[in-house]
Amino acid sequence: MAELSFKPGDYVRLRLAKKEIEGTILENADSSIYLLKLKSGYNIGIAKENVLAGRALKKFVEEKKEFELNFKKGLKNVGLIITGGTIASKLDVKTGGVAPLTEAGEFARFYPELFEMVNVKKIEIPFMIASESMTSENWIKIAEIAEKMLNDKDIEGVIITHGTDFLHYTSAALSFFLRNLNKPVVLTYSQRSIDRGSSDANLNLQCAARMAISDCAEVMLVGHATTNDDFCYALPGTKVRKMHSSRRDAFKPVNSNPIAKVWPDKVEFLREYIPRREGKVVLDTEFSDKVALVKFYPGQDPEILDYCALKYKGVVIEAAGLGHVNESWFGKIKKHVREGLVICIATQTIFGRVDPFVYSSGRALKDAGVIFLEDMLPETAMVKLGWVLGHYGWKGKVEEKMLENVAGELNQRLEFGE
Amino acid sequence: MAELSFKPGDYVRLRLAKKEIEGTILENADSSIYLLKLKSGYNIGIAKENVLAGRALKKFVEEKKEFELNFKKGLKNVGLIITGGTIASKLDVKTGGVAPLTEAGEFARFYPELFEMVNVKKIEIPFMIASESMTSENWIKIAEIAEKMLNDKDIEGVIITHGTDFLHYTSAALSFFLRNLNKPVVLTYSQRSIDRGSSDANLNLQCAARMAISDCAEVMLVGHATTNDDFCYALPGTKVRKMHSSRRDAFKPVNSNPIAKVWPDKVEFLREYIPRREGKVVLDTEFSDKVALVKFYPGQDPEILDYCALKYKGVVIEAAGLGHVNESWFGKIKKHVREGLVICIATQTIFGRVDPFVYSSGRALKDAGVIFLEDMLPETAMVKLGWVLGHYGWKGKVEEKMLENVAGELNQRLEFGE
Repeated sequence: MAELSFKPGDYVRLRLAKKEIEGTILENADSSIYLLKLKSGYNIGIAKENVLAGRALKKFVEEKKEFELNFKKGLKNVGLIITGGTIASKLDVKTGGVAPLTEAGEFARFYPELFEMVNVKKIEIPFMIASESMTSENWIKIAEIAEKMLNDKDIEGVIITHGTDFLHYTSAALSFFLRNLNKPVVLTYSQRSIDRGSSDANLNLQCAARMAISDCAEVMLVGHATTNDDFCYALPGTKVRKMHSSRRDAFKPVNSNPIAKVWPDKVEFLREYIPRREGKVVLDTEFSDKVALVKFYPGQDPEILDYCALKYKGVVIEAAGLGHVNESWFGKIKKHVREGLVICIATQTIFGRVDPFVYSSGRALKDAGVIFLEDMLPETAMVKLGWVLGHYGWKGKVEEKMLENVAGELNQRLEFGE
Repeated sequence: MAELSFKPGDYVRLRLAKKEIEGTILENADSSIYLLKLKSGYNIGIAKENVLAGRALKKFVEEKKEFELNFKKGLKNVGLIITGGTIASKLDVKTGGVAPLTEAGEFARFYPELFEMVNVKKIEIPFMIASESMTSENWIKIAEIAEKMLNDKDIEGVIITHGTDFLHYTSAALSFFLRNLNKPVVLTYSQRSIDRGSSDANLNLQCAARMAISDCAEVMLVGHATTNDDFCYALPGTKVRKMHSSRRDAFKPVNSNPIAKVWPDKVEFLREYIPRREGKVVLDTEFSDKVALVKFYPGQDPEILDYCALKYKGVVIEAAGLGHVNESWFGKIKKHVREGLVICIATQTIFGRVDPFVYSSGRALKDAGVIFLEDMLPETAMVKLGWVLGHYGWKGKVEEKMLENVAGELNQRLEFGE
C-alpha cells in the first residue's frame, strides 16, 4: 500500500495481517518502519511493508495558548513549586523518551483537575532538573520558596512536584530546614509521564492537593499506596524511601506508618499528626556539604575512611543489621573519630534499628565514639548530619543533636520485647 | 532479706513488691543489683533491696559430655558446615551478650531435633566468625568443603549455618562458585540465639534440613517466612537480601518469588526449580577482590571514582531507580571506562530493574560503556563482578558474562507492560 502520511505525535491504528495495533508515532531515522510508542510505554518498530492499512485516530496538535491563573470562589489557595522530574515531563516524540515541560501553562494544561480542586495562588519553577541532579543548594532554594508561601496568610499549604529517585533526600532536607512548620508541605511525583495510559501523575497530584489543604502541618510525600490507581498514602518526610525502580507505589514508609490514606476528595488519618497552627515558619538552612554516605560490604578495605577523613567532616556508614562492621575497621574508626571525624552508624537492612549493646563489637564501636542512629534511615541520616554540622553553634553537641528527634526521624524504641 | 545465693546462668524467679519477674542471672560488677536476662532478650537490673524473695527455678549446669555422631537407620544423610553467627551462639552469662559455641557437640546439644530428622554424616567448622568478618577467602573455603560433601555419594545435601548480616553475599558467592550443582545447598541462620524464648533457630534449622534432603539442587537460604514461628521460605541464593535488623523474617526475595514453603516435615514448592541430578559439582572459585560497591547519593563528588580506579578493577554503582547518576559524573565515568575500569550499574531501590533507554542520561551512560545489570541486586552484582574479573580467560567478555544468567541472578524482562 502507499505510505501513510503520519506525523510524529499522531495517535494511529495500524492493521497488520493478524492484528491491529495502536500507538503514538515517534520520529525515527529508519524510513522503512513506523516507530510506535504503545500505551504500555514501550516502543515498537513495525516494518511499513507489513502494514495493510492504517489511520490517524487523533492528529497531533501542539497547543500554545496563553496560561493564566484562574481563581474560583470557595476553593482554597495553595502554592505550587515545580522542580522537574517525570511529573513535569511529557513524551518527546523525537526520541520516544520524556522531556521536561517548559512552562507553568503546559503544566496546567496537563493537570486541569488540580486547578479545579484548589486555587493555585502562586506557581514557582526555580529549576527543572531530574532528582539525581539535586544538591543541597537546590534543597535550600526549595525551602526558601516554601517558606515565603507558608508565611503568606492567603496560602493554605504547599505542593512540590519533584523527580522520584532522590525525593526522599529532599523531603528529609525540608523536614529539617522548615522549623516550627505551620501548614502542610506536600511533595509529590510520578513514575510515568502524564501522557502514558498508566500514568500515576494525576491521582498523585490531586491527592497532594487534598493533603495540602488538610490539617496536617508536616512535610509529607504523597503518592500511590498500591499499584492500583485508587488512593494514595501520605508518608512522613524523614521516614520514607523509594523501594522500586518503576512501580507506581514505589515509596514505602520505613520504621513508621503512613500518616493518612488520601483520595482526591477526602483524607483518612491513620495516626496522630502535628496539626496546623498559627505563627510563622522559620527557615533554618545552615548546611555543610562535607558529609558522605558509605555502604559497608564484606571484605571492604577500611582505607575508604582515610579518603573520607581528607574530604569530609562527617560520614554515615550503612553498616550491618545491628550496626556492625568488620573488626579490621576498628583501628581506623578510632583514629579518625579521635582526630575529629564524626562517624554515624545506620543500618543497611533499611528496616529495623541499630543496637550497639547486643554484641561486643557494637559496644567497642560505641566506646570508640561512633554515633548509633537508632532507626534513622541512612539517607535521612546523611541529610541530617549535613544540617547539624552546618550549625557552628552546635559544635560539641553533634551526638546530642543527631539523637534528638527533630522531625520524626527517630521512633521510640519499644521498652521490652519486639 | 538475706542475699540470695544465685550463680550466673541460674534461671530464677524474684518477688518484688508488686510483681514477680523471671530471668537468667547474668554476671555483673555491681553487687547491689541482680542483673537478669529476660525471656524477651532484654537485660534488666533489679536492686537487691527491692527483692522480697526469690528462688532458682533451674540451676545452671555446664554440660560437658562427649559428642559423637549417632546414625539412625532410615534417615537421610546430610553434611553440616558451621561458620558462626547467632545460630551458633549462646547466651554469655558474663556479658549478657551472646558468644559463639565452641564445638560441634555443643551445637548438637542445642539442636537435638536436627539430629533426629537427618543423619549428620559430616560436620565441619572451618571458622567461627560473624558475617561482617567474612571475606572472599571464607566464601571460597565454604565452597571447597561443600564441594567435597556434595561429591560424597552418601550425602544428600548440605546445610550451612551462618551469621545473618552478610549471608546474602555468601549465598551469592556459593551460587557462582558451585557449577553444575547436583544437590541442595541450604544456608540458614538465626536472628535470636537458641537460648532466647523467641529464638528462630530451631525452626530454621529443621526446615533447612528438610530442604537439604529435597529434590531442589539450588543454593538456597532457608528462614522464617513471617514473624510467626510456623513455617519457612526457601529463597533463591542470588535474589535475596536482609531487609530487617532484628525480625525473624528478615530475609526477603528480591525481584523473585520464594522457591518453596517449608515445614520441618514437608516442602511445598511454589515455582519451578532445578532438580537433583547425577554427576559431580564443579568448583569454580576464581575470584578477584579488586571490586567495590559504591552507593550514589545526591551531591556526591565523582572523585570517588578516581579513588576506586586506583584500587579496583571493577565497581558496582548503586544508582538511582532506572540507573542514573548526576551528569557531573559522566566525564569521570567515560574517562575511567576508557582506561579499563569496569563500571556496572544496579538500582539502589533494591526492587525493580535499571533501564538505560527511558531517559537520555541513561543512554549516555550506556554509550560510555557502563554495564546496566537489569534486575540484579547490587550485593549479588559485586560478588559476581569479583568472580567474573577473577577469570582471566573471560577478559574482553566481562559485559557478556555479567549479563549472562549464571545462577538465577537475572530475571527475564516481561515483554510488554508492567
